[in-house]
Amino acid sequence: MKSLRVAMLGCGVVGSEVAARILGHGEELAARIGAPLELAAVAVRDASKARPGVPSELLTTDAAAAIEGADIVIELIGGIEPARELILSALRSGASVVTANKALLASHYGELMKAADAAEVRLEHEAAVAGAIPIIRPVGNSLAGDRITRVMGIVNGTTNYILDQMDSEGWDFDTALRTAQELGYAEADPTADLGGHDAAAKAAILASIAFHTPVTIDDVSVEGITEVSADMVETARAQGFTIKLLAICEELSDSPEGPGVSARVYPALLPREHVLASVGGAFNAVFIEAEAAGELMFYGQGAGGAPTSSAVLGDVVSVARRKVLGGRGQYERRLTTRLPVLPISAITTRYQITLDVFDRPGVLSRIAEVFAEEGVSIELVQQTQIEDEPAGTPQRAKLVIATHAGIDAALRRTVDRLAELEAVNALSSVLRIEGH
Amino acid sequence: MKSLRVAMLGCGVVGSEVAARILGHGEELAARIGAPLELAAVAVRDASKARPGVPSELLTTDAAAAIEGADIVIELIGGIEPARELILSALRSGASVVTANKALLASHYGELMKAADAAEVRLEHEAAVAGAIPIIRPVGNSLAGDRITRVMGIVNGTTNYILDQMDSEGWDFDTALRTAQELGYAEADPTADLGGHDAAAKAAILASIAFHTPVTIDDVSVEGITEVSADMVETARAQGFTIKLLAICEELSDSPEGPGVSARVYPALLPREHVLASVGGAFNAVFIEAEAAGELMFYGQGAGGAPTSSAVLGDVVSVARRKVLGGRGQYERRLTTRLPVLPISAITTRYQITLDVFDRPGVLSRIAEVFAEEGVSIELVQQTQIEDEPAGTPQRAKLVIATHAGIDAALRRTVDRLAELEAVNALSSVLRIEGH
Repeated sequence: MKSLRVAMLGCGVVGSEVAARILGHGEELAARIGAPLELAAVAVRDASKARPGVPSELLTTDAAAAIEGADIVIELIGGIEPARELILSALRSGASVVTANKALLASHYGELMKAADAAEVRLEHEAAVAGAIPIIRPVGNSLAGDRITRVMGIVNGTTNYILDQMDSEGWDFDTALRTAQELGYAEADPTADLGGHDAAAKAAILASIAFHTPVTIDDVSVEGITEVSADMVETARAQGFTIKLLAICEELSDSPEGPGVSARVYPALLPREHVLASVGGAFNAVFIEAEAAGELMFYGQGAGGAPTSSAVLGDVVSVARRKVLGGRGQYERRLTTRLPVLPISAITTRYQITLDVFDRPGVLSRIAEVFAEEGVSIELVQQTQIEDEPAGTPQRAKLVIATHAGIDAALRRTVDRLAELEAVNALSSVLRIEGH
Repeated sequence: MKSLRVAMLGCGVVGSEVAARILGHGEELAARIGAPLELAAVAVRDASKARPGVPSELLTTDAAAAIEGADIVIELIGGIEPARELILSALRSGASVVTANKALLASHYGELMKAADAAEVRLEHEAAVAGAIPIIRPVGNSLAGDRITRVMGIVNGTTNYILDQMDSEGWDFDTALRTAQELGYAEADPTADLGGHDAAAKAAILASIAFHTPVTIDDVSVEGITEVSADMVETARAQGFTIKLLAICEELSDSPEGPGVSARVYPALLPREHVLASVGGAFNAVFIEAEAAGELMFYGQGAGGAPTSSAVLGDVVSVARRKVLGGRGQYERRLTTRLPVLPISAITTRYQITLDVFDRPGVLSRIAEVFAEEGVSIELVQQTQIEDEPAGTPQRAKLVIATHAGIDAALRRTVDRLAELEAVNALSSVLRIEGH
């Protein structure tokens, strides 16, 4: 059997692992595929730099030339350009492409899939969301006969590690971040992770596949975890919650703006008994609700060279096998509908609002009035005296209010109006409650 | 676009849901597939019995005729014959087949796959293991570029419900079983579930796919949960364990009998902090360890009409899409190796042995001697006085001994020898410890 030529673009942490497995497990992979894989070229920026385990004669700085004649192209450069151009050119030349590039997929999913379809080849990207966890295939293929209503994921290991340490060790945010950086769980510039942008890219991809409709990162409403304090985590714990950065994708049949989908990322309160609550450390997990299947969860390592290489190689075996058997196909993972993407104001959720109020008669009734006027129903109020005040200053209280489910816009308006009340000294925190 | 003719064999709880979704979600499914599905015939034993939602003109008692001219056959009859003959005849006629038949796959996987390959059509069976949870595709396809070393699953909802209730409510076995039957989680004749045979069929299928080697139900070593007592559950809880019925598939590179695979089902002690330990009620979960991916877990509903129909329809969409695009394929899920299946005596595991002993000087040393002679290392011994003895009878003690990892044959021999010691009044229980 003729071997299949594989070109790899990029050779960092993931690429080295992928190359090592192709070169070191050749016989096993060939048996599964029905043909041997030949790693023909590895395009890198600096070909003089040694890549352990990768024969230097495979290295080239000419990515375009590396693609030529390849049956399969593995794109591990990341970022939008030149990755996009290289993938499009590979697809057009008849190569199937495997990519881990979440930024690119979150902005150009439709374009890339169309190009793959037109060329009758495949574009696979299991590694782009939640690392080693098989999630693209289950969502896009296994559940293609069902109707997914909601996807809720912990898809960023850095922020999950930080929040988990704050919860389990009582650390403040800065200590947790510093430790994450020391352990290699956070990058030197952690902005994309902490700000929720990495999770947002994954939310866009998950929403596109789950609802068969184009959703880009620009459609995703994003809040990061930089405002989460040790005090908020402690309060959450005392009330039976844990704070997790969640990527949520939902199909809403009715919202104030009509039917559509929502994709959003924010730190939320999750009941400690929810299956996602026990996802600790840098692990990832994706929780899915589907009409027929009910509740599903997928759990595993979301990042790292070896885990990500597992997802990349699964895709490589899959597209290679397809090359051997003939026939084309993007399968069931197609954007067959075009649903509007709803703004976050249109979603239904619950708020937990923590206020620092002046402890005077009539305060609670004034606050309750605001809720009533906005049509927001209160589920629970917990009031505790704020101690340690300097003598002579007015007595204050901490008020934690959990709402019933309501439209986000009304909840938001309620919060804005509360902040302006004279009786309210400060708005300490606002968190959404999910998983109830 | 020409519609695809679907024939369904069997129309029970799952079949009714499948039919309802094909008939009720036609447009959505057609968009994903690229062609409409036409439910052309439903073969049943008694065509006069009304099937809510299924037009009576589709019903027939002639399964062979129903298959004729079908593009896709959904087999939901269960059991070996006539299911096997019907599937083989459907495959030979060029139809792709979707089945949920675990008994058949656990005994004839190789034969059926070979027939599908020869006919250049597909045989899919996501619903046969762990109901709604996408597990066949992740194990067989997503991880095809990796090397799975171990699969550990809670794959029987009935036994998990019973063990979970015994653990969380302190019920005895009979009360838990009776409640399971009242709630419909256990059948009137629960033998196949309680005896571990249902789980064993799933273990055979999982092992075949995970290790690309034929494993049948006859290769699986099986112990059920009928011996699990309230006392054992209570002791386990006190020591930080929970008892779960586990289906374990392992590839062993070295064992006393050389390299090979092991597939087995038994109730085992699992540390309460293990991710599988929190799988409650009738839920299923499969925990996977792979060389590159590390630890993964898949969680969801393992049975029931709607959940199982989700898995069946995912397969239907997949094979239908393949019919539309052309090309054949069993993909990566092939039996490319032929590893020996090892007997349970060759596996490495840990035992927890509970003894009722006469509390006399020298007893512990006599017991420790047996372990030493068999080369089994003790990790922990816990001794408690047995109270409430009638006056005049010798004082007794309960001895709980946890071993370090050892070869099962040696552990077994140790237990047999302990039971014969004069100082041992009774062997109260022997459980394996997993997940450490």
